[in-house]
Amino acid sequence: MTDQGNFPPPKLGEPYLLTPGPLTTAYEVKEAMLRDWGSWDADFRVMTDEMRMRLVAMLGEGGDDFTCVPMQGSGSYLVEAMLGSFVPRDGKVLVLANGAYGLRAAKTCDTIGRARHLLDMGDYMPPRGADVARILAADPAITHVLAIHCETSSGILNPVAEISAATYAAGRKLLIDSMSAFGAVPLEPGKIRFEAMVSSANKCIEGVPGFGFVLARRSELEAAKGRSHSLALDVHAQWEYMETTGQWRFTPPTHVVAAFIEALRMHEAEGGVAARGARYANNRDVMVAGMRGLGFETLLDETWLSPIIVTFFNPADPKFDFARFYELMKDKGFIIYPGKLTVVDSFRIGCIGRMDAAVMTRVVEAARDSLGELGVASATPPAAALEERAKLAQAKVRETA
Amino acid sequence: MTDQGNFPPPKLGEPYLLTPGPLTTAYEVKEAMLRDWGSWDADFRVMTDEMRMRLVAMLGEGGDDFTCVPMQGSGSYLVEAMLGSFVPRDGKVLVLANGAYGLRAAKTCDTIGRARHLLDMGDYMPPRGADVARILAADPAITHVLAIHCETSSGILNPVAEISAATYAAGRKLLIDSMSAFGAVPLEPGKIRFEAMVSSANKCIEGVPGFGFVLARRSELEAAKGRSHSLALDVHAQWEYMETTGQWRFTPPTHVVAAFIEALRMHEAEGGVAARGARYANNRDVMVAGMRGLGFETLLDETWLSPIIVTFFNPADPKFDFARFYELMKDKGFIIYPGKLTVVDSFRIGCIGRMDAAVMTRVVEAARDSLGELGVASATPPAAALEERAKLAQAKVRETA
Ligand SMILES: Cc1ncc(COP(=O)(O)O)c(C=O)c1O
Ligand SMILES: Cc1ncc(COP(=O)(O)O)c(C=O)c1O
Repeated sequence: MTDQGNFPPPKLGEPYLLTPGPLTTAYEVKEAMLRDWGSWDADFRVMTDEMRMRLVAMLGEGGDDFTCVPMQGSGSYLVEAMLGSFVPRDGKVLVLANGAYGLRAAKTCDTIGRARHLLDMGDYMPPRGADVARILAADPAITHVLAIHCETSSGILNPVAEISAATYAAGRKLLIDSMSAFGAVPLEPGKIRFEAMVSSANKCIEGVPGFGFVLARRSELEAAKGRSHSLALDVHAQWEYMETTGQWRFTPPTHVVAAFIEALRMHEAEGGVAARGARYANNRDVMVAGMRGLGFETLLDETWLSPIIVTFFNPADPKFDFARFYELMKDKGFIIYPGKLTVVDSFRIGCIGRMDAAVMTRVVEAARDSLGELGVASATPPAAALEERAKLAQAKVRETA
Repeated sequence: MTDQGNFPPPKLGEPYLLTPGPLTTAYEVKEAMLRDWGSWDADFRVMTDEMRMRLVAMLGEGGDDFTCVPMQGSGSYLVEAMLGSFVPRDGKVLVLANGAYGLRAAKTCDTIGRARHLLDMGDYMPPRGADVARILAADPAITHVLAIHCETSSGILNPVAEISAATYAAGRKLLIDSMSAFGAVPLEPGKIRFEAMVSSANKCIEGVPGFGFVLARRSELEAAKGRSHSLALDVHAQWEYMETTGQWRFTPPTHVVAAFIEALRMHEAEGGVAARGARYANNRDVMVAGMRGLGFETLLDETWLSPIIVTFFNPADPKFDFARFYELMKDKGFIIYPGKLTVVDSFRIGCIGRMDAAVMTRVVEAARDSLGELGVASATPPAAALEERAKLAQAKVRETA
């Protein structure tokens, strides 16, 4: 395990954020926010242009038919904008859920008035191509499939390639929430077909939060005119205005955009998606090996572990108390994440952001020391958690039409 | 005309933004963005809390029944969120428009499926209390009135006190878009009754762009449950989540929030709404007097000139070319705004942001020198513009039910 470059610790001494968005960003990224920009000015239009071009280029093979539409708001806004703009009012979405973000997408469909069929795999089981094929065959009304690329609530990397194959074999269209994966996990339209995807500034590209972006096929964007349930979240309107004027339709988060452009440049300098993904995978490997060494167990088995965030079961030892563990880790300079599972107690550690394997080694040491301070002798989870995992893995799929 | 404090020029040498949002902010405000914050962490919850309390306090008299709901997105998102959350699905809005932002609000109603009656006063004539009373008397289906506090497209300060009086005399409810006025123009619910208002971080409070906020009566928020057409723009859901957890429902723009809190502290240190408004009014007075001295004419007469932004007619001299004037002004360190009128050519100069009368004096000098470089001898507008103004001022109101 070697350091892969130069990753100085946070300059102002704040804790590392092992929370996949907001995450620890480079000081240079934040420094780009030290001046004010006029959003109407040509200088800022050039910045918007550069950002859009870099994002499209990041798609890789097959990205030529795509364009980029940045939009103000958080990631959830972008998911809603995508659903409201690309799914016709009389369309129907098959939502593939295995965690909180999939379920939120289903709720979004309900709120904005798009019919949907929910495939709910529970806390972390992957929706498979065969599931998609079966459901699409049974319901010809379904026009679109929505997949979550990395379901951040468990950290599972969903099998978007087989989902895409099943979707297009059935003549339907795929939309992807790649919020926490884009920029570190390849998503090349030439290899995995889809119509549109969304992500946000503060994930694998390592910007600060404040906006997100759609990458969509131009033909789908053209078809989206007048479809949105919302003025603010209308992707077509945003695109048309930007193409015509070079400006954002409404006031952009200028400083956050400036920071993001610096982050995009650093992403390229590091070696693009492949290098970023390799650093994160290394972060994960070092961290998971170390945590397992302390007795911790991961929710997922190797096949499905993303390089983004990893879920660990809480130790069985009654002396383990997550709130205290969190504070002890924070005192040592690391902010971790509570779990988001419905069935068993867990916590999460992110692998993304401006940090490398050397930092991950210190995370493991901090976890070891924190357990010691709590008087927890072993991090082994309760047998019940492992049984639950085994049971869940075999659980029947819950479907609601 | 004296300087009112210590307003050093932009530290990185960028031009002043005479554009009311984004605007020139204090370096200290931007410096607050130099560290990363965990959005789930207690430290950030404390920041969110402080921000909400300071904003409610800024309402002044009668603010006790109000609470603050910050929301991700630009100002237009906030206007849409307010309309979708506070107007029942079977409600009807009287939209008082005299410029681009009023018209956008009407379009928002159409898009999100809220019935509306549009009173369109044209480019800048104020909607008066008597107009409101007449329309409300004629249409009992109208439940809400939407007023634009300062219509930034012309710079007119609309008469919200008489609009409020007419609204409540007719037993209806008032919603206010105070985007470009809140923080510098008093809007005390004890003096001017209303149910909810929206504004954004990057206007008179002098933060950087990236989110906005609703200030609403708690009783109206409670009634808003389940009403929104949008998941992301659901003010009730955001409020309920924040009250329960202290966190934002979705990833907040952490750095922009940190900057805003610094801006709120500086707002208080300056002396609050009264002092901020006085500085802006002085900025306007110095700038308008100087520009008139060069022969420029304002679109509005004194009664309606806001301390936020002022519209000037383009000079009649054919040597005047706005694009070149803009560049010459920018070279001298000042970014100005194009006009947003439908009928006559104009441009705008903002009075808000981290600057004082000394800066405004230099703006006037830069305008004088830029005219000189263009070879424009006098800034007097074409007679036709003044006639148009006189005609417009008498124009019949356009109403569309
Ligand atoms: C996969 C996925 N979808 C959607 C979201 C929602 O993003 P936001 O919290 O910015 O609204 C997230 C946030 O982490 C995510 O990981
Ligand atoms: C009165 C008013 N309403 C709405 C808006 C829209 O705000 P945004 O551009 O942030 O969407 C503005 C922006 O200047 C405004 O001045």
